[in-house]
Amino acid sequence: MATPLGIAVIGTGRMGADHVRRIQEVVSGARVTAVVDIEAERAKAVAARVEGCAVHTDPAAAMASAEVDAVLVASPGPAHEAALMAAFARDLPVLCEKPLTPDAASALRLVEAERALGRRRVQVGFMRRYDAEYTRLKALLETGQLGRPLMLHQRHRNVASASFFTSDMLITDSVAHEVDVTRWLAGDEITAVTVLRPASSAGAPEGLIDPQFVVLETAGGALADVEIFVNCGFGYQVQAEAVCERGTARVGDGHAMVTAMAGRWGGSITQDWTERFADAYDREVQAWVDATRRGEVTGPSIWDGYAAAAVCEAGVRSLHEGGRVEVELAPRPSLYG
Amino acid sequence: MATPLGIAVIGTGRMGADHVRRIQEVVSGARVTAVVDIEAERAKAVAARVEGCAVHTDPAAAMASAEVDAVLVASPGPAHEAALMAAFARDLPVLCEKPLTPDAASALRLVEAERALGRRRVQVGFMRRYDAEYTRLKALLETGQLGRPLMLHQRHRNVASASFFTSDMLITDSVAHEVDVTRWLAGDEITAVTVLRPASSAGAPEGLIDPQFVVLETAGGALADVEIFVNCGFGYQVQAEAVCERGTARVGDGHAMVTAMAGRWGGSITQDWTERFADAYDREVQAWVDATRRGEVTGPSIWDGYAAAAVCEAGVRSLHEGGRVEVELAPRPSLYG
Amino acid sequence: MATPLGIAVIGTGRMGADHVRRIQEVVSGARVTAVVDIEAERAKAVAARVEGCAVHTDPAAAMASAEVDAVLVASPGPAHEAALMAAFARDLPVLCEKPLTPDAASALRLVEAERALGRRRVQVGFMRRYDAEYTRLKALLETGQLGRPLMLHQRHRNVASASFFTSDMLITDSVAHEVDVTRWLAGDEITAVTVLRPASSAGAPEGLIDPQFVVLETAGGALADVEIFVNCGFGYQVQAEAVCERGTARVGDGHAMVTAMAGRWGGSITQDWTERFADAYDREVQAWVDATRRGEVTGPSIWDGYAAAAVCEAGVRSLHEGGRVEVELAPRPSLYG
Amino acid sequence: MATPLGIAVIGTGRMGADHVRRIQEVVSGARVTAVVDIEAERAKAVAARVEGCAVHTDPAAAMASAEVDAVLVASPGPAHEAALMAAFARDLPVLCEKPLTPDAASALRLVEAERALGRRRVQVGFMRRYDAEYTRLKALLETGQLGRPLMLHQRHRNVASASFFTSDMLITDSVAHEVDVTRWLAGDEITAVTVLRPASSAGAPEGLIDPQFVVLETAGGALADVEIFVNCGFGYQVQAEAVCERGTARVGDGHAMVTAMAGRWGGSITQDWTERFADAYDREVQAWVDATRRGEVTGPSIWDGYAAAAVCEAGVRSLHEGGRVEVELAPRPSLYG
Repeated sequence: MATPLGIAVIGTGRMGADHVRRIQEVVSGARVTAVVDIEAERAKAVAARVEGCAVHTDPAAAMASAEVDAVLVASPGPAHEAALMAAFARDLPVLCEKPLTPDAASALRLVEAERALGRRRVQVGFMRRYDAEYTRLKALLETGQLGRPLMLHQRHRNVASASFFTSDMLITDSVAHEVDVTRWLAGDEITAVTVLRPASSAGAPEGLIDPQFVVLETAGGALADVEIFVNCGFGYQVQAEAVCERGTARVGDGHAMVTAMAGRWGGSITQDWTERFADAYDREVQAWVDATRRGEVTGPSIWDGYAAAAVCEAGVRSLHEGGRVEVELAPRPSLYG
Repeated sequence: MATPLGIAVIGTGRMGADHVRRIQEVVSGARVTAVVDIEAERAKAVAARVEGCAVHTDPAAAMASAEVDAVLVASPGPAHEAALMAAFARDLPVLCEKPLTPDAASALRLVEAERALGRRRVQVGFMRRYDAEYTRLKALLETGQLGRPLMLHQRHRNVASASFFTSDMLITDSVAHEVDVTRWLAGDEITAVTVLRPASSAGAPEGLIDPQFVVLETAGGALADVEIFVNCGFGYQVQAEAVCERGTARVGDGHAMVTAMAGRWGGSITQDWTERFADAYDREVQAWVDATRRGEVTGPSIWDGYAAAAVCEAGVRSLHEGGRVEVELAPRPSLYG
Repeated sequence: MATPLGIAVIGTGRMGADHVRRIQEVVSGARVTAVVDIEAERAKAVAARVEGCAVHTDPAAAMASAEVDAVLVASPGPAHEAALMAAFARDLPVLCEKPLTPDAASALRLVEAERALGRRRVQVGFMRRYDAEYTRLKALLETGQLGRPLMLHQRHRNVASASFFTSDMLITDSVAHEVDVTRWLAGDEITAVTVLRPASSAGAPEGLIDPQFVVLETAGGALADVEIFVNCGFGYQVQAEAVCERGTARVGDGHAMVTAMAGRWGGSITQDWTERFADAYDREVQAWVDATRRGEVTGPSIWDGYAAAAVCEAGVRSLHEGGRVEVELAPRPSLYG
Repeated sequence: MATPLGIAVIGTGRMGADHVRRIQEVVSGARVTAVVDIEAERAKAVAARVEGCAVHTDPAAAMASAEVDAVLVASPGPAHEAALMAAFARDLPVLCEKPLTPDAASALRLVEAERALGRRRVQVGFMRRYDAEYTRLKALLETGQLGRPLMLHQRHRNVASASFFTSDMLITDSVAHEVDVTRWLAGDEITAVTVLRPASSAGAPEGLIDPQFVVLETAGGALADVEIFVNCGFGYQVQAEAVCERGTARVGDGHAMVTAMAGRWGGSITQDWTERFADAYDREVQAWVDATRRGEVTGPSIWDGYAAAAVCEAGVRSLHEGGRVEVELAPRPSLYG
């Protein structure tokens, strides 16, 4: 296909605006032909930097344009379901930011809707799967040389949480990534969640349960633990160690440049995800554009989005009620392999 | 004290014989004046390599000699209680290998007996506390610059387990070290234990539950997790990462020499504890000899041995019955600070 | 500029074909509108994968097309001078692969020609300057927190050299990169070169002087050493350590994923430059496209290409004649700052 | 031998006093029976801490005592020759601190004197050979799996130099260690030295040529380079990387404990040699005591001390006169294998 893919970006907040920049300046073979936001002024400001970019406040209106070949959904989670249903009505391919929807019930409705279409239309934005290190870890596990993964130790640390961040969001917003990574690396569904509460850090806002320690069990018997600590103070670290039958593999040390000065050796720690995962986002969107131009849908599916939502719901229950909570999943449609 | 300390070594199996060699060839200011074993031939073989070393089959008989100033107990765990009681009767200082005794009840009798003497006589052989890296980690935590420890992630991996190793022994023999390390680093008692069972490795002997994942809770709210994997196949690794309010610290990477060859960079992994912790054993025994010659008793106490036994008993119950098991400790005598 | 930049790629060998792929599939805002090769069949094969791409055997003919806004020169070094002169005649911006030309005299003619134009038209392909780690090292040095760089230790290792590789080419083809890196990091010209010959490896082809050890001196007194070893057998490694007045900084360890298996910890070593520097090439070409669309010329200049050629010539003399050889540079035109 | 080895320590400055402490408190099977210093008060102060320790101002007088079985020479270098000659007269085994003597001529006289005795009596204090990491590197090279060593990159950095430290002493006092390490690892003599002078650091005292960069050539064609930087400001680092025909091996990273805090990961750098090489000194003296009690002499020989002195003399000439200076060695007596 010689013509660049015309993309409507739904949502022009921090993430949406960044995707507009990415499509215009980084990604090959695509351009932004429309932006959509219920706050028209914000959308106009973003569109002003893109030649020939339409502005809408209604996703469906944008999708009606002949200039729009595909849709990138970056609006707040509660708006995702309507946007995806509109895209389904037009049979448009979609890249939908995570979380797919705020709860498992709505996610399951989307599973049903896509299943009714009879083919996949949506890639969900679990961008860890496009990070070079995680990709390498997945590839190593697939060679089988380490044997079956038995345990997965994961760390997810942020410098400080936003003021609106709640104890539940450590699960639904942060651990959601590890939920997807665990399912992806283990090649298996998660069947139970236990959220443990160490003493909260003096560095966390009053009332926030931080850190938390989450144990995930998979159908095949693998055990994954996740330290989530969103006010660790010192940096943004995302690490994973797969412990297999014949060896281990670890990613996320981030040891690119090593300095020695003032009695210390070592390096700097990234301070947020835009720095740590910039390349992963670039690869994710490029992969989506490339697949779409080939007429394909690849990457994390709506089912992956639904499963993550269901696991996070169980996690929030475990956080509130204590103890182990089993995850109930709907039957998996054959569309999702 | 100019004269070397005369030591009776009780038990001349692998560990006891190694301690005899250590005292004779490595440690300054001490010599072995008697060895004791119920298997007299084994004791004689060891004594033959030491000038002027008496041989006994009864610990009490050895302790009656004027040549014996102190006792090192390296006999099997079930024999420890009698040996220590004999030493108490003679008021002799003791270095007792771990485990102190096989169960919490007998350990508590020793606590009582030493409390009745009114002063500490025993150092228990938790030699991790003498390892250079663990010592450095403890020192860093004590500076307070990282803030309070909230979580402690620990890994304990062996190449392969001995034929007699049982699922319980992953707790009582291996995790016992992490139980002591956790209490020592956190400066706190452990109040509950949960043992989780990932799928067992195909590399583990039939019927052995290996690996296991153990969660320890401390009175102050710190959470420690321990991966114990005694048939990991690739090496002996003991690692700990303390996650504190303002930073983390990790020991046990063991990255001494780095090679690059045949498409790989990296280094070798030690294959067993005699290689990894040789220096720690040397320092442990030297520290005990030095303290004893100064008329002092330092290092891990009988109370530490008792607390570890109680935690391990709770761990074994959790392994068998599932779920979280609380640890019940007797009141701590003032002798143990 | 809304229209993509139309690029003529001169040379469709391995490097040229890879740049065509890069521009079509990776880089944003550009497309290949013409390819040029004296071997017409090779050019046609490459053009067949690009919609609307013209095929030429003469660079000047390609540059005459209105579809060509800029030129990427990836032909063999001896053909660079003519191609650049043709581009100068059309006033077209150029990205020219390294080496600029095979010798300092021809490079100096290009310096003169561009100086006569009165403004920079050419970016030379020293892609190390676009590598994430080198960029970080440069940025750190520029903060001044380490003080002035005094020494620069560099390693450049290849698995095996191509059959046509000569002892001179270790300098002109491989060390040429370190020559540019040294000038760039030190912010200074190189004034003398000494090439030392350790015993050659049994793994090197008969007659090839490999490894070599090159010492570079800069006008400001910094000393750079380069180990060049093109038949090291185990991997492709490019490392640099800057030793400054108050600290050191090292890049190139390449420690992304760490595994532990079979008694070894560590990771894999990249096997060639396409793997190690793929991102650097992507960034280089994107940076050139972006600057060109803004009407600017940035990055390494023809002067940088000339200076590298002059240093390499001195290096080859040192290799052949032994001892230290001083570098003679023409006066630097003000165009090059 | 049941009785501890009685040792006379010659010289009770910082190094001598530390050896006294080491023999009394760390080393097994030995005790200090005499100390010697021309400053009697200093000797008395050290002797006061050791039971039954005689005090002398003349080495020969100390050696006349029946209590003295062996001699440890830790006096200033110029006093070594007389002390060793006195020990030869008594046929006493000696551990002599490095440098053996201040110049090659006096070192050669000692070679002659020991050769005349017909058997080795002296171990020279190149304690790097007893460091765990260097020992491991040597062992790896001896397996032959990396092939022949072609290059050896070495770094030797000190926080700050003492006020009396001269530019020559960077060679004779510091690089002397790398001279021995190079000879030991390469298994070969050094045939030429070139000392290069990068710009001196602003952190070095006025007039001191610091850092220096030293290139050593061996008879077998291996090339060793040494960065010596005695005012690097940030820590004490001693590193070596052997580049062999099929791989490389590096020691000295010192990555024992890794912390993450305040935006940085990494660890602390030792601040001086007493911290970095304490274990090497302990092992060195223990190895000497053990060999002596077995009636053997092992470790670095007087020949090693002489060769290091000759190389350092050539190095100082290169530093002063510039260029490459060849090393002239006397014929090697068969006593030294």
